[in-house]
Amino acid sequence: MNQMALVGRLVKEVELKEIGEGKIVTNNTLAVKRRYKNEQGQQTDFIPVVAWGPVAKLLHTYCEKGHLVGLSGRMQSRSYVNKEEETVFLVEMVIDELHFLQGRKIQDPSLLEVEV
Amino acid sequence: MNQMALVGRLVKEVELKEIGEGKIVTNNTLAVKRRYKNEQGQQTDFIPVVAWGPVAKLLHTYCEKGHLVGLSGRMQSRSYVNKEEETVFLVEMVIDELHFLQGRKIQDPSLLEVEV
Amino acid sequence: MNQMALVGRLVKEVELKEIGEGKIVTNNTLAVKRRYKNEQGQQTDFIPVVAWGPVAKLLHTYCEKGHLVGLSGRMQSRSYVNKEEETVFLVEMVIDELHFLQGRKIQDPSLLEVEV
Amino acid sequence: MNQMALVGRLVKEVELKEIGEGKIVTNNTLAVKRRYKNEQGQQTDFIPVVAWGPVAKLLHTYCEKGHLVGLSGRMQSRSYVNKEEETVFLVEMVIDELHFLQGRKIQDPSLLEVEV
Repeated sequence: MNQMALVGRLVKEVELKEIGEGKIVTNNTLAVKRRYKNEQGQQTDFIPVVAWGPVAKLLHTYCEKGHLVGLSGRMQSRSYVNKEEETVFLVEMVIDELHFLQGRKIQDPSLLEVEV
Repeated sequence: MNQMALVGRLVKEVELKEIGEGKIVTNNTLAVKRRYKNEQGQQTDFIPVVAWGPVAKLLHTYCEKGHLVGLSGRMQSRSYVNKEEETVFLVEMVIDELHFLQGRKIQDPSLLEVEV
Repeated sequence: MNQMALVGRLVKEVELKEIGEGKIVTNNTLAVKRRYKNEQGQQTDFIPVVAWGPVAKLLHTYCEKGHLVGLSGRMQSRSYVNKEEETVFLVEMVIDELHFLQGRKIQDPSLLEVEV
Repeated sequence: MNQMALVGRLVKEVELKEIGEGKIVTNNTLAVKRRYKNEQGQQTDFIPVVAWGPVAKLLHTYCEKGHLVGLSGRMQSRSYVNKEEETVFLVEMVIDELHFLQGRKIQDPSLLEVEV
């Protein structure tokens, strides 16, 4: 069993990457406020997130940096070799479901233009 | 909102550490099977977990390497400076609740001794 | 293990009840949109929720009918005898944590008055 | 957002029902221990659960009354008219994922027989 739910804000713009086999992926980070403040004030966790295929496209179409979203999914670990040829171990959330918690990004501003 | 639930096995023995202010903490890693097998067979995620105070003590008293446990909690991020003076960014689960899913560790082996 | 997370809207005003031993409780229902639409259109689940003590007070102070909230907690079952002397079996969410996902209720409307 | 995770025991045998359009469904109840005991001792919640299609079949194939299972899914509400022509409102968990937490039911004991 592996289940998680987060509500927080995207820390950067959503960029789609196409990898090898025609798969689409996007990586981001969610800023999640902690429930309790401590002596340093409001604490925030920064959780890496990844979305694939249709979920990645939804995120790209409707969300931008700073948007509040609810995410459901699971935690995964993976490792990769970086440019310095070091193996990096990474823990990140894989997004299964995406919930928009504020106004969506306007895709085509011309839709808002009023002809006189 | 920040909520997660995992079921998996502890990958190492539970060791308590006492830090500065009399606080007790234990770090471990949970091996969590993925739901779906892929072409490489069964995949497993390795999720770092941390427990404080009474939860750490429960884990230490009743669990050992390999035990199956259910954990509820939240995901946190933090950074620290390692021995090589590099800043390491870490994502880990903070355990709020612990559920024993198999026989507990026997605390006093003498209880198992059979008189002849 | 018993963990749940919901995002939805309160279907009625928050009213505090004081019961016997000085305990404060509030009952409400959360309207939660389903992820997928079906042939009847958007489906919504109506989940009974209950909050006690400080969580009930927070809900009462800051939320009103229609507000979007995120709730973390657990599912419980209980039964009671109603006015018709029938035993009613009830399943409801007990709220542990409350997340405001929209502007809070204005407590003192006079703060909004503009002096002329 | 609507996400829940339970670990508990099935309170009755798993029976498959086929409904109208060739759909398969099974209903059961999960007995979930509460975390804290109170003055009445250990408390247990009884949460209605429902599974469809392949998840229902898995449950039927491998689980029996009393088995410990981990369930992931969501909470739904629905109403139906019972034999007394009363409308009954029901809250139940829809199972998305099923985790076996103990030995599986042996389906065909003959598989275990050894030919000499």
